[in-house]
Amino acid sequence: MEPIYVIKIGGDIIDNDSRLSKFLSDFASVKEKKILVHGGGKMATKLAEQLGLAQKMLEGRRITDAETLKIVTMVYAGYINKNIVARLQANNCDAIGLCGADGNLVLAHKRQHPNIDYGFAGDVDSVRTSFLKTLLENKFTVVIAPITHNQKGQLLNTNADTMAQEIAKALGKEFDVTLIFTFEKRGVLLDITDDNSVIHELDPANYRKLKENHRIFEGMIPKLDNAFQALNHNIQKVIIGNAEELQSLIKGDAGTTIRINSRNT
Amino acid sequence: MEPIYVIKIGGDIIDNDSRLSKFLSDFASVKEKKILVHGGGKMATKLAEQLGLAQKMLEGRRITDAETLKIVTMVYAGYINKNIVARLQANNCDAIGLCGADGNLVLAHKRQHPNIDYGFAGDVDSVRTSFLKTLLENKFTVVIAPITHNQKGQLLNTNADTMAQEIAKALGKEFDVTLIFTFEKRGVLLDITDDNSVIHELDPANYRKLKENHRIFEGMIPKLDNAFQALNHNIQKVIIGNAEELQSLIKGDAGTTIRINSRNT
Repeated sequence: MEPIYVIKIGGDIIDNDSRLSKFLSDFASVKEKKILVHGGGKMATKLAEQLGLAQKMLEGRRITDAETLKIVTMVYAGYINKNIVARLQANNCDAIGLCGADGNLVLAHKRQHPNIDYGFAGDVDSVRTSFLKTLLENKFTVVIAPITHNQKGQLLNTNADTMAQEIAKALGKEFDVTLIFTFEKRGVLLDITDDNSVIHELDPANYRKLKENHRIFEGMIPKLDNAFQALNHNIQKVIIGNAEELQSLIKGDAGTTIRINSRNT
Repeated sequence: MEPIYVIKIGGDIIDNDSRLSKFLSDFASVKEKKILVHGGGKMATKLAEQLGLAQKMLEGRRITDAETLKIVTMVYAGYINKNIVARLQANNCDAIGLCGADGNLVLAHKRQHPNIDYGFAGDVDSVRTSFLKTLLENKFTVVIAPITHNQKGQLLNTNADTMAQEIAKALGKEFDVTLIFTFEKRGVLLDITDDNSVIHELDPANYRKLKENHRIFEGMIPKLDNAFQALNHNIQKVIIGNAEELQSLIKGDAGTTIRINSRNT
């Protein structure tokens, strides 16, 4: 199957103009088919503050009231998405920016919870792979903002990690998918204070041992559990590392590569 | 050649939710290939006010400083574009929202003027017809926000009427294009105070006579001069009328139809 990279960048790099430039230049130079999923950065929070809106967070997720939805739609699907597209085009990467509503790319429903009203938060139902394939076959690179919709006219705010993972899983049936999550660290660290203590490979066996011995930083566990779950859905490997090392991450020379079957076993 | 409609909606309808819903339902039901170009409405101005930014206008055009560009990118390419797309999808119209940067759809340069710095205002250089054709052939309806770019990473704010006209002209080489400009009036009026005094057809001869006799409202003259200029560039007809009468506009039962060669002569 043909290789494809689904790469998620987070707020830390979006908020830093020179790091973002370097990343976009590296990303543009990836020869294989590729999809970029971006998060939001601090701009949405800052805009909400400027407009005097109080942001509510619950378990790390933004509670999306109507005004917050307006802001994230503007910032994610408008400002950030279109600036990334324009800068990729300047790097000769033929990018198109979309959100989940465009071409029914990512369908979702308003999150249901017995006690908490998350507002206009969307949980993903399905990804329209055929649409992505049409664009990819026409040599476009797709840049995706984490806004979905419910097919009834309602936009929904969706977690960018989830968005990347669901897109990667959907493409896994037809492509050899590598899912890359970038964040501020160089990979999964054995010692959270030492950026050189990157665990180069994780498989279910050594992950279990490291967890038992409390060698994995607790904050990483949900991300890693998700990664292993994704690997059970047609994704070949998940790589976690720093966006500034994209080319090395792809080569396997940096970051943490997560596989079901380790190369070394 | 295959027919296509390029339809521009302005701020008056974007600002009115029930009128917008009716329009989008009518638009979705158009069977032929179609493109929607939208303007901005009052939301960008309102957001600028809330953020304490003074808006500068010159000869009816916004002076686009860096902060204003940020706002129009968020509002036009983000909020308005994605809400229109989600609502068209709810009407079973397979819409994709783009700006001029996506797929290099509309290339522009920063407006040059000997005395006035318009800021990040973009004048259109070219339209990538092949990209639009790919989407149209795949049965997508394209919704376009009036944001362009210069291929060097800079987004630019572009007049939505110009955007619609340039797209229509570019498609005119390969499609039988009808360009529809909607606004708050029912068409070009003989008596600006009488909404029933619509001139049904304009051709160069009767337009000249009406202008000579001062029967055309002065504010309409630049729009009409532009329309006649467009007709010299492969566009079959231009229709001007009220967005609420879209289906009648298309049938020729409402609005003002502008042709080089009148049906009646």
